[in-house]
Amino acid sequence: MIDRPRIDALQYCNWSRPVFEQMREGGLDAVHVTIAYHESFRETVLNVEAWHRMFERHGDLILHARDVSDIDRARETGRTGILFGFQNPSPIEDDIGLLQVWRDLGARVMQLTYNNQSLLASGCYEDDDTGLTRMGREVVAEMNRLGILIDMSHSGDRSTIEAAEHSTRPIAITHANPAAWHPALRNKSDDVIRAVTGAGGMLGFSLYPHHLKDGSDCTLESFCEMVARTAEAYGADRLGIGSDLCQGQPDSVVEWMRTGRWTKAVDYGEGSADAPGFPPQPDWFTDNRDFPGLATGLRAVGFSEQEVDGLMGGNWYRFWADALVPA
Amino acid sequence: MIDRPRIDALQYCNWSRPVFEQMREGGLDAVHVTIAYHESFRETVLNVEAWHRMFERHGDLILHARDVSDIDRARETGRTGILFGFQNPSPIEDDIGLLQVWRDLGARVMQLTYNNQSLLASGCYEDDDTGLTRMGREVVAEMNRLGILIDMSHSGDRSTIEAAEHSTRPIAITHANPAAWHPALRNKSDDVIRAVTGAGGMLGFSLYPHHLKDGSDCTLESFCEMVARTAEAYGADRLGIGSDLCQGQPDSVVEWMRTGRWTKAVDYGEGSADAPGFPPQPDWFTDNRDFPGLATGLRAVGFSEQEVDGLMGGNWYRFWADALVPA
Repeated sequence: MIDRPRIDALQYCNWSRPVFEQMREGGLDAVHVTIAYHESFRETVLNVEAWHRMFERHGDLILHARDVSDIDRARETGRTGILFGFQNPSPIEDDIGLLQVWRDLGARVMQLTYNNQSLLASGCYEDDDTGLTRMGREVVAEMNRLGILIDMSHSGDRSTIEAAEHSTRPIAITHANPAAWHPALRNKSDDVIRAVTGAGGMLGFSLYPHHLKDGSDCTLESFCEMVARTAEAYGADRLGIGSDLCQGQPDSVVEWMRTGRWTKAVDYGEGSADAPGFPPQPDWFTDNRDFPGLATGLRAVGFSEQEVDGLMGGNWYRFWADALVPA
Repeated sequence: MIDRPRIDALQYCNWSRPVFEQMREGGLDAVHVTIAYHESFRETVLNVEAWHRMFERHGDLILHARDVSDIDRARETGRTGILFGFQNPSPIEDDIGLLQVWRDLGARVMQLTYNNQSLLASGCYEDDDTGLTRMGREVVAEMNRLGILIDMSHSGDRSTIEAAEHSTRPIAITHANPAAWHPALRNKSDDVIRAVTGAGGMLGFSLYPHHLKDGSDCTLESFCEMVARTAEAYGADRLGIGSDLCQGQPDSVVEWMRTGRWTKAVDYGEGSADAPGFPPQPDWFTDNRDFPGLATGLRAVGFSEQEVDGLMGGNWYRFWADALVPA
């Protein structure tokens, strides 16, 4: 058994038994899964119900992880712990009281915005970033109280820095890369990464091709060198993986991710009219079985075994052990 | 400190700090409160949120009880544990998957019907009782799995007997009296009480005047003699209190309880055109401070101290210690 848990801090796969079997093959002890992109409260409850059915039907492979003790239990029983999170605050609608309801239902991570302006803050695709709204500041405080992790992966720079400052507990960017390596609206400036990690927070590296230098042609070495440079700048213990893996999803899903119900027009997001669908994954990271290869790549660029264990999940585990507990 | 917990297995008061203070004065360690009569899933979530706010604001007097260990904690800290339940399956709508969602949100008791036909079974006011429906049988099995107590207080005789038979775990009538003492649609025949208690279930005695012999003029002695006769027939350890206390509610609430949204007409239920509102409580049981007087009355009709402790809450505690745990 490996020393430390292996954790992926962001996936949105087309969930099925084969995917869960591949998680086991890849040695994943826990995965933070997205259960809402654009869904209302009521719609997200239906997603929870679908997960409950999967936990019943595939209880030999997965379990519902509410805290790190459930990840321990997953490891002890050879399963993968599934942690719920939102990429958008839409499941709380305009009601701060729904945060505690969601805490009871297992939500442990919430982005204050997806790409657009939300009731709480500004998304990274907006022209102007207002920072935290009045409700945003209240919601940050309530998330701090309840032990729901603030995730700013899809938020604007000012909103992210304000969230890091306003929050009394460390926050996270679960899935993005440094913009200095690959400029993209979704990748993060040095100022943002410093604000988050400097306050004790975490950055999870994305394997989504639009976030990678050279896109689908990005090499494992290039990716791991980027991790090494980021570790030099911010400390290897503040970093992990948040692959953004969308295994087995049809292109209609990425179209829906981009447009939800907020527009009637086509929006290509990080894609383009020529390439509107999901981009092909790099051949060294196509599904959940490719996690061990990441560890190999990290060793090859000079990380110690202890650092590799941290990057591959130990850091998320240690961070979640605090971040997911009520104040 | 008294030997055994004091528990009321049904209240729907106009909740406020003075009511919680009176619960403390009355020595109540736990109260099963109704959080839905006619509400949909989404509406009941709002009621949960209102309770969350009360737990925060009045945390010196009350706490959210999810199992009997929370009742222990309430006793140790001088507070009253609040257990959530539904008097109608409306919060699960047509979706069996919502039961597990409600389990996570704290619901521990659900009536399969209020007075009318539901998707699950027949209410005690219907002309014909179909017994458990197809969905009703599935829901009983799911409640058994999850540890949500089946309550048939407002159901028809056939439905109640079928629920007791179909359920693999004991069920309850949380608030009703024997019809042999006072005939009323809401009171229960010997056959029904035998089916429920004979299968290990519980009957909670109601203090709602329409369920009492002589109504608002019922004497404490008459009530306690009725308890004694019921104990002779079914065993004192299968009985408790479920007062149905609606302290401080305006008459508009009893009108809403009776008609919800299912009719546009007036329905007087157990009342009448001459007395459409809440009936006056007997002077010996008007609010939560009157619980100790019940114990005095039970002693006066010959119950032993141990039996009184059981009737006043020990029996519900012992029963809930099993009934509220997942299978």
